[in-house]
Amino acid sequence: MRSVARRASQDELKKQVGFKAVDDYVKSGTVIGLGTGSTAAFAVERVGEKLKSGELKDIIAIPTSIRTKEQAEGLGIPLATLDTHSDLDVAIDGADEVDPALNLVKGGGGALFREKIVEMCAKKFIVIVDESKLCDGLGPGFPVPVEIVPFCHEHTMRQIAALPALAGCEPVLRLGNVANNQKDGDEPAITDNGNYIVDLKCSPQRPCGRWRTAQGDGGCGGPWPLHRHDHRLHCGWL
Amino acid sequence: MRSVARRASQDELKKQVGFKAVDDYVKSGTVIGLGTGSTAAFAVERVGEKLKSGELKDIIAIPTSIRTKEQAEGLGIPLATLDTHSDLDVAIDGADEVDPALNLVKGGGGALFREKIVEMCAKKFIVIVDESKLCDGLGPGFPVPVEIVPFCHEHTMRQIAALPALAGCEPVLRLGNVANNQKDGDEPAITDNGNYIVDLKCSPQRPCGRWRTAQGDGGCGGPWPLHRHDHRLHCGWL
Repeated sequence: MRSVARRASQDELKKQVGFKAVDDYVKSGTVIGLGTGSTAAFAVERVGEKLKSGELKDIIAIPTSIRTKEQAEGLGIPLATLDTHSDLDVAIDGADEVDPALNLVKGGGGALFREKIVEMCAKKFIVIVDESKLCDGLGPGFPVPVEIVPFCHEHTMRQIAALPALAGCEPVLRLGNVANNQKDGDEPAITDNGNYIVDLKCSPQRPCGRWRTAQGDGGCGGPWPLHRHDHRLHCGWL
Repeated sequence: MRSVARRASQDELKKQVGFKAVDDYVKSGTVIGLGTGSTAAFAVERVGEKLKSGELKDIIAIPTSIRTKEQAEGLGIPLATLDTHSDLDVAIDGADEVDPALNLVKGGGGALFREKIVEMCAKKFIVIVDESKLCDGLGPGFPVPVEIVPFCHEHTMRQIAALPALAGCEPVLRLGNVANNQKDGDEPAITDNGNYIVDLKCSPQRPCGRWRTAQGDGGCGGPWPLHRHDHRLHCGWL
């Protein structure tokens, strides 16, 4: 499996794990949460395919972003919100980093707030990642996103930087496109909730203290849908 | 003093405490926080008057709402934000209820989020109330406002209602004008931050447990600017 994974492009890997998660965990007659991001988009695509072919029936899906909502609408997937359906059978989403204890960084795609609310309502939360997302300890490899209210955001960023638990992290305001943490504009990126995002960059010398875990076996290569019933999403809301 | 207070209308009382707070606590050359609401508006008015007369000089004020910002601008009060001035000498604001231990309910005027952020930055926080705001225990007398994100707000309200600490509270979505908790419209009220407000109505039989305090002496009549260095504002943000 690992050699296949290495040969495949990252997009092919994302497609493999996205499709596999749907094939393994989405059953007819269930309420599902649809994640946001390049990997989750393949899962959404697969749900649409299987509904069209008739292999899946009576699905109700709760999207975690406006982008995912639009994609699902385009594929004819029946949608609802937590207001009417707050007991989800399963939610499927990607992650930006996964440590050996299955702690996650999420929010690189800017949908962290809605993802967290929706995925906390799911009996099963399937996290789909390829091996590029695996790390020994969260923080240095991928900035940890935090959604903040625009009001006095510079003040809020100073308050975040001063938190003892975040010593060694540099808060960086996300600019340009909200869907990635690269600077591709001059204006603050705006989330679906009308807020800003601060990406907490942790130096390798000083990783985010409480996210740092012991060195793991690091041996889980290839596509691996994680399957956990509890939620330990290390993305925040201040 | 009590007999004077009783004769005066409530507006006159509000003016008395608003003016007195500024006279007693606002000095030239300081950075001040300006609260929001009918009582705080008198304090803002007084700052404007004293700047105009020259009795006060070199004030920089941080408003806690768009309404207060507009009032202060109209009076020629120099304004800034926490982004440039996050160390306030004093903040002055009203409250909706005050218990004998000086715990407060705030947010009836809909500015709870910005008030809390600004007032936490003040060395002194002066709470101005007339005796109608005094109570034995918070909760039954005035619904406790909580600001929530609009996304899936019905779900969020159910989550709030299910919190063990809030047993006995009924969450009510604020409709119409954001500046009061009376239903005066059909659409959800929108805060300065683009959010909704839920007012937690607690029955007298089941007051909000942890806000309930021991029976106090209840003897503090008339205008009474409270003066505390710590902050125990019982309004929330979920």
